[in-house]
Amino acid sequence: MSLLVVGSVALDSISTPFGEVTDALGGSAVYFSAAASLLGPVRVVGVVGSDYPVAQLQRIRPGVVDWSGVESQKGESFRWRGKYSFDLSSRETLDTRLGVFANFRPSLPPSFAATPFVFLGNIDPELQLSVLNQMQRPKLVACDSMNYWIESKKPQLLEVLKRVDTLLLNDSELRELSGDWNVHRAGRWVLGRGPRRVVVKRGEYGALLIEPGKTFFVPAFPLEEVFDPTGAGDSFAGGFLGYLARTGDLSSEGLRRAMVCGAVMGSYAVAKFSISGFDGVTPASLQQRIAEFHELTHVDLAGTIG
Amino acid sequence: MSLLVVGSVALDSISTPFGEVTDALGGSAVYFSAAASLLGPVRVVGVVGSDYPVAQLQRIRPGVVDWSGVESQKGESFRWRGKYSFDLSSRETLDTRLGVFANFRPSLPPSFAATPFVFLGNIDPELQLSVLNQMQRPKLVACDSMNYWIESKKPQLLEVLKRVDTLLLNDSELRELSGDWNVHRAGRWVLGRGPRRVVVKRGEYGALLIEPGKTFFVPAFPLEEVFDPTGAGDSFAGGFLGYLARTGDLSSEGLRRAMVCGAVMGSYAVAKFSISGFDGVTPASLQQRIAEFHELTHVDLAGTIG
Repeated sequence: MSLLVVGSVALDSISTPFGEVTDALGGSAVYFSAAASLLGPVRVVGVVGSDYPVAQLQRIRPGVVDWSGVESQKGESFRWRGKYSFDLSSRETLDTRLGVFANFRPSLPPSFAATPFVFLGNIDPELQLSVLNQMQRPKLVACDSMNYWIESKKPQLLEVLKRVDTLLLNDSELRELSGDWNVHRAGRWVLGRGPRRVVVKRGEYGALLIEPGKTFFVPAFPLEEVFDPTGAGDSFAGGFLGYLARTGDLSSEGLRRAMVCGAVMGSYAVAKFSISGFDGVTPASLQQRIAEFHELTHVDLAGTIG
Repeated sequence: MSLLVVGSVALDSISTPFGEVTDALGGSAVYFSAAASLLGPVRVVGVVGSDYPVAQLQRIRPGVVDWSGVESQKGESFRWRGKYSFDLSSRETLDTRLGVFANFRPSLPPSFAATPFVFLGNIDPELQLSVLNQMQRPKLVACDSMNYWIESKKPQLLEVLKRVDTLLLNDSELRELSGDWNVHRAGRWVLGRGPRRVVVKRGEYGALLIEPGKTFFVPAFPLEEVFDPTGAGDSFAGGFLGYLARTGDLSSEGLRRAMVCGAVMGSYAVAKFSISGFDGVTPASLQQRIAEFHELTHVDLAGTIG
């Protein structure tokens, strides 16, 4: 089944202890699409300035990613410039230029309105609502957000949550949204506000899937070399939703597999600058990495102390 | 098979957002024993002052924990006083009084010398070596350490590692010991210095077992109420080694089960002050909590993208 993402299409200039890159493809919709398109078709809604290297976007799995919902406007593209600490554990934003993204008003091509799976990337909650108002009864709506919106537009974000099945947030954002530092209580708080499940992203520590009365944990893939953490969360979302859209399986078991696909995509994203970590991933190498999660977490507990 | 622990036997005065306790049973050997004795017999080597409430120690599963290696000396017992932040994520040491622990020279009762499983709690590496020199070819030696020894006695600690099978450290200690912020590379660094495996404790994020060429991950049990994190790491060690000593099973599968037992014991430790979280744990409730780890991490990956 098809999958729609609405989010930023940006140009990132990043400095890590291992190198620098200028004006590389970035933004939530780009990372999401690079990941999800390994699992099935993706439709993108966004905006770019007249300076955006659109031809580079179109080289990301042509025919699998549909960029026709990305509007090109006169003006500059959204640019972000950041620098990571020596151990990649924190980053500093050096510059943010919204450009045409400041006036982004998502407008869905009519052919996108019936897309069954939707990911609302981290944009203004009012825009997230406007996207939902343009859609016809999607099968699953997921959304992300960030501290900026939690602080400035919490009532609107709570309106979004009422119409969302799956909230994906990192742990600090979840703590801020709920006002509770315990992630499990915070997850339960969210479940009382609309979503049927919460995916808590915890960076190098992995991610949690919190559903009513149960929790599933997936670790981050153990990497000895992490090159650039930018986009790991959006790539996780792309793997998670890409798998759900591919299979349509929203059972507990299907959601667990989707979590593993999310963790796998996160591990590709951080291996290189921009979306280069997805280059050369084949169905066989993807299957191999998925299988390695079995080794990483499998334990037979029958009769442990019996 | 029997299990020996050498470590601190202390009195802790702790303040958390939920309450305070004064002169409660604490110290690495006490938490370790409270946990490990749920799985089998434990022998303790340590020192207390003449003011220590020894009768309270002896009420911890009488007949299962052997306290005859705990020497009573004239003087004050080791006391630690600390305060946790509102979200329990950090703590401040308000006072440390070593008392008789400052002159601790572990002396093993002759009947302890042939104990097959040994845990060297976080004490001076020179004392850890002296314990090993008093032992007869143990089947498995595990040890812990801390930043203080890494900074002040690294050469001696590296001598200890040459004689240790399993190193248990928290992630910040592992980073400091190896000089590498990537825990997977840091783990491999340790494997080149003696130990056959490293257990990396990561608090609320769980723990990693790093062996040559493979890694296993166990999450922390999802708790909506964490009362006092003190002793979680030593309780993890008690569960891990208690399980290995109980079964003698050092296979990869046995080590994974031991990791789950460690995580279970950590979850009991943090539920109440001191070792009260272990009160009332029965074989049935223990088995129940172990089984809940299956639900928390199990995923069937066969044919995920096939």
